[in-house]
Amino acid sequence: MADAITTVEMLKNSVKKFTEDREWQQFHSPKNLSMAMASEVAEVMDLFLWCDNAASYEELEKRRQEVEDEIADVAVLLLAFCVRHNIDLSAAMAHKQIEQARKYPIEKCKGKSLKYNQL
Amino acid sequence: MADAITTVEMLKNSVKKFTEDREWQQFHSPKNLSMAMASEVAEVMDLFLWCDNAASYEELEKRRQEVEDEIADVAVLLLAFCVRHNIDLSAAMAHKQIEQARKYPIEKCKGKSLKYNQL
Amino acid sequence: MADAITTVEMLKNSVKKFTEDREWQQFHSPKNLSMAMASEVAEVMDLFLWCDNAASYEELEKRRQEVEDEIADVAVLLLAFCVRHNIDLSAAMAHKQIEQARKYPIEKCKGKSLKYNQL
Amino acid sequence: MADAITTVEMLKNSVKKFTEDREWQQFHSPKNLSMAMASEVAEVMDLFLWCDNAASYEELEKRRQEVEDEIADVAVLLLAFCVRHNIDLSAAMAHKQIEQARKYPIEKCKGKSLKYNQL
Repeated sequence: MADAITTVEMLKNSVKKFTEDREWQQFHSPKNLSMAMASEVAEVMDLFLWCDNAASYEELEKRRQEVEDEIADVAVLLLAFCVRHNIDLSAAMAHKQIEQARKYPIEKCKGKSLKYNQL
Repeated sequence: MADAITTVEMLKNSVKKFTEDREWQQFHSPKNLSMAMASEVAEVMDLFLWCDNAASYEELEKRRQEVEDEIADVAVLLLAFCVRHNIDLSAAMAHKQIEQARKYPIEKCKGKSLKYNQL
Repeated sequence: MADAITTVEMLKNSVKKFTEDREWQQFHSPKNLSMAMASEVAEVMDLFLWCDNAASYEELEKRRQEVEDEIADVAVLLLAFCVRHNIDLSAAMAHKQIEQARKYPIEKCKGKSLKYNQL
Repeated sequence: MADAITTVEMLKNSVKKFTEDREWQQFHSPKNLSMAMASEVAEVMDLFLWCDNAASYEELEKRRQEVEDEIADVAVLLLAFCVRHNIDLSAAMAHKQIEQARKYPIEKCKGKSLKYNQL
């Protein structure tokens, strides 16, 4: 598999099958999945906890496989949420990007990390 | 856009363009992106904070647009991480699923929510 | 030690000594400590990930020592934040409670779990 | 109030009264409180999201009142957890510190931010 030829639906189907084979849909309430996502993201954070931003790039290269595994764990839960609760992720992202582009106009926020309400 | 015809690369390219237009790559260290992801996931959790699992399904339907927006925010940061740090998400997920299938054999964990080390 | 006779300052002093003995103050930036707190809270969440609210009470009793250890880990980081960044926690809590009492008047929110902006 | 003369029990009693006045004990399951804590910690993180460690010290001074308010919010939930689930925080911290001192011997970890399993 590779991102260039893999649709979001193909990834969703893979997560769906894994879940249904284990009859885990019953545990996939919005509440549970949001918590589980938070827990997996915390494992990504754990890899960069005490270092500076600059050092976190090196840290990533040293432990790339671990990082990729944790990122995959987050993705699985994100897609499990979309599968279980009928979200078309591509459509949701397209919808949200319109709002983001309005909140963060290029000319106002170029090179700045400020939040929209501080711009 | 729709998940059936959208490749992961197409979503990545959209995130990449949005980021580069604003010259935000400089802020996208592994450390910063992991924190930002955690912050966005917390906003998903916020929608289901004090209710039971059962009630969280209804809560989701009542506030579907908000939920989809927050899920999209998480996805943007997840893909921004993959873009900035050269992760092929489909490959990472395929790699991780092999390990998960080994940790969670169907016959042992069907219908159970236990962690692999408690099975 | 017991909560009835232990002042917040006594707990802070204990955290301070542990930190200074190891020369860890240098790592205790607001950014790092906020991440580390999030990571420790995720370990508390992990203990109640897939169960219902009702079952989480039993889960806590079954694994009380683990829960208490994780709660202690969160407290250590919270107090380390206060120590390193000169926060009088008792004063901060008293200050915040005035605002909370205003946002959540007893008569309006008794028995309800709504957020103040939904009351 | 001030940390030097405030016992942990006094803070707990204040949180307990606030909770009971609003009949909120029913919502304070271990699961709900762990989620709510995670959500409040995310609000602390939000204040230091895109900056470097060094800049986060200045950021804290610029927005000290906000930081103190968010730290207080985390403390309220941590103490609400201890109140609702009978945890003596001082005892739990004393117990955990013995383990931490064993995991992180001064001579081995002085000035180092490594996790115990990497020392």
